[in-house]
Amino acid sequence: MTETIGRSQTRARAQDAALRQRARAVIPGGMYGHMSANALPPQYPQFYQRSLGSHVWDVDGNEYVDLMCSFGPMILGYKHPGVEAAAAAQHADGDTQAGPAACMVEAAELLVGRVAHADWAMFAKNGTDATTTCLTIARAATGRAKVLAAAGAYHGAAPWCTLRMDGVTPEDRANLIYYTFNDIASVRRAMDQAGGDAAAVIVSPFKHDAGFDEELVDPGFARELRALCDRAGAALIMDEVRTGFRLHDGGSWEPIGVAPDLSAWSKAIGNGYPVAAVLGSASYSEAASRIFVTGSFWFQAVPMAAAVATITAIREEGAVPAMQRTGTMLQDGIERQAAEAGVQISLTGPPAMPNLRFAGDDNLARAKTFCGTVAEHGVLVHPRHNWFLSAAHTDADIERALDATWQGFRAVRQQFGEG
Amino acid sequence: MTETIGRSQTRARAQDAALRQRARAVIPGGMYGHMSANALPPQYPQFYQRSLGSHVWDVDGNEYVDLMCSFGPMILGYKHPGVEAAAAAQHADGDTQAGPAACMVEAAELLVGRVAHADWAMFAKNGTDATTTCLTIARAATGRAKVLAAAGAYHGAAPWCTLRMDGVTPEDRANLIYYTFNDIASVRRAMDQAGGDAAAVIVSPFKHDAGFDEELVDPGFARELRALCDRAGAALIMDEVRTGFRLHDGGSWEPIGVAPDLSAWSKAIGNGYPVAAVLGSASYSEAASRIFVTGSFWFQAVPMAAAVATITAIREEGAVPAMQRTGTMLQDGIERQAAEAGVQISLTGPPAMPNLRFAGDDNLARAKTFCGTVAEHGVLVHPRHNWFLSAAHTDADIERALDATWQGFRAVRQQFGEG
Repeated sequence: MTETIGRSQTRARAQDAALRQRARAVIPGGMYGHMSANALPPQYPQFYQRSLGSHVWDVDGNEYVDLMCSFGPMILGYKHPGVEAAAAAQHADGDTQAGPAACMVEAAELLVGRVAHADWAMFAKNGTDATTTCLTIARAATGRAKVLAAAGAYHGAAPWCTLRMDGVTPEDRANLIYYTFNDIASVRRAMDQAGGDAAAVIVSPFKHDAGFDEELVDPGFARELRALCDRAGAALIMDEVRTGFRLHDGGSWEPIGVAPDLSAWSKAIGNGYPVAAVLGSASYSEAASRIFVTGSFWFQAVPMAAAVATITAIREEGAVPAMQRTGTMLQDGIERQAAEAGVQISLTGPPAMPNLRFAGDDNLARAKTFCGTVAEHGVLVHPRHNWFLSAAHTDADIERALDATWQGFRAVRQQFGEG
Repeated sequence: MTETIGRSQTRARAQDAALRQRARAVIPGGMYGHMSANALPPQYPQFYQRSLGSHVWDVDGNEYVDLMCSFGPMILGYKHPGVEAAAAAQHADGDTQAGPAACMVEAAELLVGRVAHADWAMFAKNGTDATTTCLTIARAATGRAKVLAAAGAYHGAAPWCTLRMDGVTPEDRANLIYYTFNDIASVRRAMDQAGGDAAAVIVSPFKHDAGFDEELVDPGFARELRALCDRAGAALIMDEVRTGFRLHDGGSWEPIGVAPDLSAWSKAIGNGYPVAAVLGSASYSEAASRIFVTGSFWFQAVPMAAAVATITAIREEGAVPAMQRTGTMLQDGIERQAAEAGVQISLTGPPAMPNLRFAGDDNLARAKTFCGTVAEHGVLVHPRHNWFLSAAHTDADIERALDATWQGFRAVRQQFGEG
């Protein structure tokens, strides 16, 4: 295993530092949300200059293999030619206009064709728009209020689901009841607690809570969840925002044969263009037509044209098997490296969305040493959030990533010792 | 006043009809939200092909002078060269990337420079994101829950504020207390009802509730509202989503000398590119840095580059006085026409955002006859929502619009008689 790579270990940071200073004067805390670098090791940039394929460049010109894929949206590579051509053609006609363009219907037809449970589609902007709209439709359909959600799961950043309670009122969460992912008895207890007022159960295709090991779904749990919803007359809502089209080119639970009633999509469906979707089965269409949800840019045409091209290319270009293959290369390499370095890790999740944790690393000190070293060697991964593969990642990218992770494991071993 | 215009009064609709039929199969109700043509007269298209300057073309090739401006986002004209150049330059570098681009800081600096009350900025996608974030910041800052809002005002489409109660639970509205716009005694009563738990008062720069006459703010009301918030220790939140940069090239209440603590912006700030902003005063910065709000596309660079170009051009190209001038031409012409036709109307609001209602028209029958006829004559206005001027509307556009509105008034007079 090579221990040197052809780039400096002290990367330029002056432009980034200057922008951070300007940002602190006009943005609360200097930055906010999931893309804030405030809690990341100092080797990470906050501001980026450009992107192409699987690579990004920060404002100081440093290049990175991007294994975060913009936290999911990039799935075919930055500036994928087919997606860019479709977006450019629509842009030449119009984008935000007096009403939607024909590509909105094409995008809806394509999603209904691709995702087995879907009989209809609605579009929005944020993943949070999509999950919130699913709840609203389920409540309109059932006339009930309560929603069962897995404790610790992330379903967006609105007051009912955001990660921090600052500014959130008890009433924002009053209709949420929590269960434990993969624990059907806990769902039954939550359903009992709802006392006939359960509008829906929301679930992610697998557990991907930041800071924890990922956990794939037990197919038995999925089937019992479906049966429980049927008996209770509650909607089963699938949150595909983070997972959609990375595990399967239809719904993520199609391989295990369990269909939700409603599903929320965003991130990868437009390869970076801003679009979200709610998909539903026929029996929820009437309720969906009654609720009022909208946004100034929800009918924007370019992202819908990009979504048509993206979803088409995901299947035609074999994106899912490609991510499976390179993700497995990466996982296998990391497991080997950790063993060779004598560092105890827990590498979990599907190959396209791996999550790395270090044993005994509750304060993330090991993860930060690792990820900072990896960033210094030109590869972006995250100390607390799952990583993302894309169809644009090549064998050479994975080899370069493994050169960097090897440096990361060495640094962890050097700083924290064995184990 | 000319009574003929040089285009057919029976416009082609075959492509639109075919798309509507396809849409009904895959979109609940065929369409949803504010851009649904379901409740509009049959002369309106649902789907649009392209747009340029102040004009749009539907999928059957029919051209329109667009006096709806995409319900606000278009302010400088579709495909404004300066905005398009800035967006294209940023797009060539990158859009949704591993993190924000430098233009995010530039956009924040520009907004802080333009809007008097603003010491900082945060960005989002939807107007609803911006208003909801203002509430969350106010609650985080004050540790209180209640928000006072004007009855009937539109502040977005989340459960706490959407127009229809389908799928909305009582808990979603439990912390809202309603007052009457321009009625300070009603605000005092609402504040008393909040009993020391008022986090904020949210207000629009003027009353623009769909289906009602618009009402400009009484400067005395605005000043007393500010004083009442100060005494109560509650934040004054200004909803500039619909109004922002159409009335003034800073905050809409700057001419009357009343500053909010927080303001929500979207629609026009990117000339159609999808971006929203929260602006705030220094004393709310710490709370803003504590809350967790984010979205997959909130750090997208192209809309921020577009916003910098848009906000710059609004001042440099004199957009506000241009809209004031053409809007006044339109208002004056419509008032004259209505009098000449013997049709009683109520034309209200600022020239850049006029609202037309017909006397005794509770079922909107007159408004629909009028707007349908106007659409048939190649001009888009709305029977229930305020219209929007842009800086791209020319004198020739206004003349053409007035040709169409004259036909509209004739049709109303013919169908409903005088009065």
